[in-house]
Amino acid sequence: MLTDIEIAHSVEPWPIQQVAEAAGVDAKHLIPYGFDKAKVDYSLLNEPSDHEAKLVLVTAINPTPAGEGKTTTTIGLADALRRRGVKSAVALREPSLGPVFGVKGGAAGGGYAQVIPMEDINLHFTGDFHAIGAANNLLAAMLDNHIQQGNALGIDVKRITWKRAVDMNDRQLRHVIDGIGGKAQGVPREDGFDITVASEVMAILCLSTSISDLKQRLGEIVVGYTYAGEPVRARQLKAQGAMAALLKDALKPNLVQTLEHTPAFVHGGPFANIAHGCNSVMATRMAMRFGDVAITEAGFGADLGAEKFLDIKCRMTGIRPSAVVVVATARALKYNGGVTKADLNEENLEALKAGMPNLLRHVDNIQSVYGLPCVVAINRFPSDTQAELDLIASECEKLGVNVRLSEVWAKGGEGALELADEVMRLVEEPSDLRFAYEDGADIADALEAVATKVYRADGVDFTPAAKRQLAELRANGFGNLPVCVAKTQYSFTDQDKLLGAPEGFRITVRELKVSAGAHFVVALTGNVLTMPGLPKVPAAENIDVDDDGVITGLF
Amino acid sequence: MLTDIEIAHSVEPWPIQQVAEAAGVDAKHLIPYGFDKAKVDYSLLNEPSDHEAKLVLVTAINPTPAGEGKTTTTIGLADALRRRGVKSAVALREPSLGPVFGVKGGAAGGGYAQVIPMEDINLHFTGDFHAIGAANNLLAAMLDNHIQQGNALGIDVKRITWKRAVDMNDRQLRHVIDGIGGKAQGVPREDGFDITVASEVMAILCLSTSISDLKQRLGEIVVGYTYAGEPVRARQLKAQGAMAALLKDALKPNLVQTLEHTPAFVHGGPFANIAHGCNSVMATRMAMRFGDVAITEAGFGADLGAEKFLDIKCRMTGIRPSAVVVVATARALKYNGGVTKADLNEENLEALKAGMPNLLRHVDNIQSVYGLPCVVAINRFPSDTQAELDLIASECEKLGVNVRLSEVWAKGGEGALELADEVMRLVEEPSDLRFAYEDGADIADALEAVATKVYRADGVDFTPAAKRQLAELRANGFGNLPVCVAKTQYSFTDQDKLLGAPEGFRITVRELKVSAGAHFVVALTGNVLTMPGLPKVPAAENIDVDDDGVITGLF
Repeated sequence: MLTDIEIAHSVEPWPIQQVAEAAGVDAKHLIPYGFDKAKVDYSLLNEPSDHEAKLVLVTAINPTPAGEGKTTTTIGLADALRRRGVKSAVALREPSLGPVFGVKGGAAGGGYAQVIPMEDINLHFTGDFHAIGAANNLLAAMLDNHIQQGNALGIDVKRITWKRAVDMNDRQLRHVIDGIGGKAQGVPREDGFDITVASEVMAILCLSTSISDLKQRLGEIVVGYTYAGEPVRARQLKAQGAMAALLKDALKPNLVQTLEHTPAFVHGGPFANIAHGCNSVMATRMAMRFGDVAITEAGFGADLGAEKFLDIKCRMTGIRPSAVVVVATARALKYNGGVTKADLNEENLEALKAGMPNLLRHVDNIQSVYGLPCVVAINRFPSDTQAELDLIASECEKLGVNVRLSEVWAKGGEGALELADEVMRLVEEPSDLRFAYEDGADIADALEAVATKVYRADGVDFTPAAKRQLAELRANGFGNLPVCVAKTQYSFTDQDKLLGAPEGFRITVRELKVSAGAHFVVALTGNVLTMPGLPKVPAAENIDVDDDGVITGLF
Repeated sequence: MLTDIEIAHSVEPWPIQQVAEAAGVDAKHLIPYGFDKAKVDYSLLNEPSDHEAKLVLVTAINPTPAGEGKTTTTIGLADALRRRGVKSAVALREPSLGPVFGVKGGAAGGGYAQVIPMEDINLHFTGDFHAIGAANNLLAAMLDNHIQQGNALGIDVKRITWKRAVDMNDRQLRHVIDGIGGKAQGVPREDGFDITVASEVMAILCLSTSISDLKQRLGEIVVGYTYAGEPVRARQLKAQGAMAALLKDALKPNLVQTLEHTPAFVHGGPFANIAHGCNSVMATRMAMRFGDVAITEAGFGADLGAEKFLDIKCRMTGIRPSAVVVVATARALKYNGGVTKADLNEENLEALKAGMPNLLRHVDNIQSVYGLPCVVAINRFPSDTQAELDLIASECEKLGVNVRLSEVWAKGGEGALELADEVMRLVEEPSDLRFAYEDGADIADALEAVATKVYRADGVDFTPAAKRQLAELRANGFGNLPVCVAKTQYSFTDQDKLLGAPEGFRITVRELKVSAGAHFVVALTGNVLTMPGLPKVPAAENIDVDDDGVITGLF
């Protein structure tokens, strides 16, 4: 069996100019980065167009720790549409370097449904994440320098909320004391680092629609509070201009191709817990400008990814999907049915059946809460047995769930032709997107709505600290922003062992934090890690490059 | 008077393909990054060629804190040669982001002698420094992860020498305690961050001649010592393959152009104190492959920059310069003659004359110690008076120093035609490069030779700590590597207030540290800062970008 990187190398990529031309991107808007990557000038989005595209969101049931193949399905579905003669385009997130060197390996699809050049996309790509890290860290340096140089703004060093960022899984940096070593070496204080994808700058970049909008949002970032309890904004440090200068190229969406040469806009990658987990608005709009059907995805399961895609990204931008694909796997159904991670490769029809309610609840949310047409895509894994696949099909039929098998990992676009046909039927159906809560709802009400409607919780509890923060956020004018829940991806609840479709639980919010530039309030539940660590044997140990620049060990 | 960025924007750049074609770079070796930047595949350096180029090193007297214009002179000289019909090419260092946001502003030449696109070159350029930072930080994360996961190698957490890096002036990170917060959050220890240009990975990249060589050197990095006192190498952490994968594109030299369309290879930028301060070997070789005369520079004054260029870079690679240009300014002569920084714009003939011995000593070093032909270029500043320039000319004549005026800041290549003519005469003279010390000399002997021959010190003293390190380095097999002195750039001595041509002093080495992958031993004298801080009003506060992506405030 070939590895992902071997499959990726087996395909001769089109020159990026050819990909662009086939998609209809004018050469004047294309900024090449090597032969097979480019950035696309977003000014074209300001040119008038009467092109009307359908947008399809790919989301998933609550996953296993290995993931269920949303990206793979997104790519394969677009390739399948192309085989059916539909002009399709893909909008995806960029991978973070951290997981590449940790457990997960690459994140550019898999098998015969990948975007290429996979090793570039998985490493530095066009430098966007480095630019985001630099902008994040410039703000941090200016903040601490302000304090060192006299602290005219009266910033309380015990209430600084802005952290530094590196695009690396580095647990050693989670909690640090910096500024030590004497009078000239900064101000000693507790501090910490997040992985770059967790930076608010990442979320801001992905929601910005122009440099002006970007600068405005960067200036609005709250970096901490004064001794008097007032929020301190990045604009008070005069940081937003230089930060935007660092981000001016990163704001341009990247164009690459799938293994079947479908255009793919791969751009941005905010965390799906403390941020909204979707590719950039620019990338989605590009895919909708150059495709008749654009396929995009959102991070984690539908309770987090689809909820935020709809309640945050669609709400803020006016983007509207016409249909939703919910990816499920036999493995994830078994996992939700109680099978441990180690036993997922074994056939277990009983557990699979027991896991079905998880899928059902996600499907029901898409249809009933959000009012969108929906199809389940069963992403076939090599370990799946025919009996398992048959059982999923019969259970879905019994429960009235619209389902198609997807074999894109093994077959590329050829493996999702039926799924493509069903998607084409669905996008022509009437849809009427509703949000889980109204615009301008109080953040406590918005959280209650998401918890009760989407997670099916009995309600939301706030810890005493979160209650104080709630009052403070309201007092500071942040009380009516959309909410962004940071929660385990494995469960509808805030506890990662409560799988399936739990009932009779409550959600506990332990911290509320404004992302004032991203324009949402983050509600943290459970333990959310914003800086991963490396495992006992990091994937990095097996990565190598030869004298011709050919990389091995990425998967 | 136009700012640098306004001048840069006044010139229409050639498409990078045109620059490459004019230089003779085959299109198949060109990897475009946008319209006006490219990387060049170094595999072409392995193709046989009988092209013989002359290499000219541009260095300087001990500078003022504002710098004397080595880069500007390098660029202007190449443009002047081009105007004289000589096929010239430039090899320069890449600027670091840190100073761009601090005091200094950009570092891509100035006035009418610049490389463009100056804002891209000063910001992310082609991402090389970010790649170097990521490789540096991957090694750090793997090191701390190794300890966290059981520390099979027995690494002494009190003897870790490998620091993390960010490309930012951020004093808050100079000294930190990381790994705090409990059992799962790493191992609490003293740590610190360097600016990326101070990373040994930067020095290694700049000295590497292939991916194999790069990987070999990365594997040789000493990250710390075991409890038993044995050095621990990056290869024991299996980090070198993934680090090299991160660096595979960064290893390729970047091609841009001067304002007069002379090809410029701008690549790498190691510190000139704790590292060797020169652009990459690859870039220098490229400039020598595609130019008949290649002009390059080295950091700080000649006591550091030229010494390291010759004793480290030339020794290790076989590259040989044919002539040396020593840049001086009326301001730096006055500074060396005792004028304070605040008064440098005032005419002061007496001080200027008093500063001449500094220039003389550098010229004598180039000629007598290293055996190379030499010309002084007086880099004219707008504040210079005619009386000052006349005095420099007459003093030089009196002392037998070969000197030419350079007005490239105001006039571009037109301002250095006489300098160019003199350089063309010098490169045809016989030269016989000698090093300050023999290959394989003991590090103490090498330091003694550099100190007595180049700095004109009476000798070298080692602190007790440095003596212990000397013994340990010898015991570990590092006793015969070339030496890299980290010293103030303002003085021949290790004290930054002793200007001019001091005599009767000794150099005190307070720490010795091996850069085992770069293949040199760093000798630290005085206080050398490897992480700068931001000033009271950072340059970042004035940097901005508009909706068309046009940046202002870089200078």
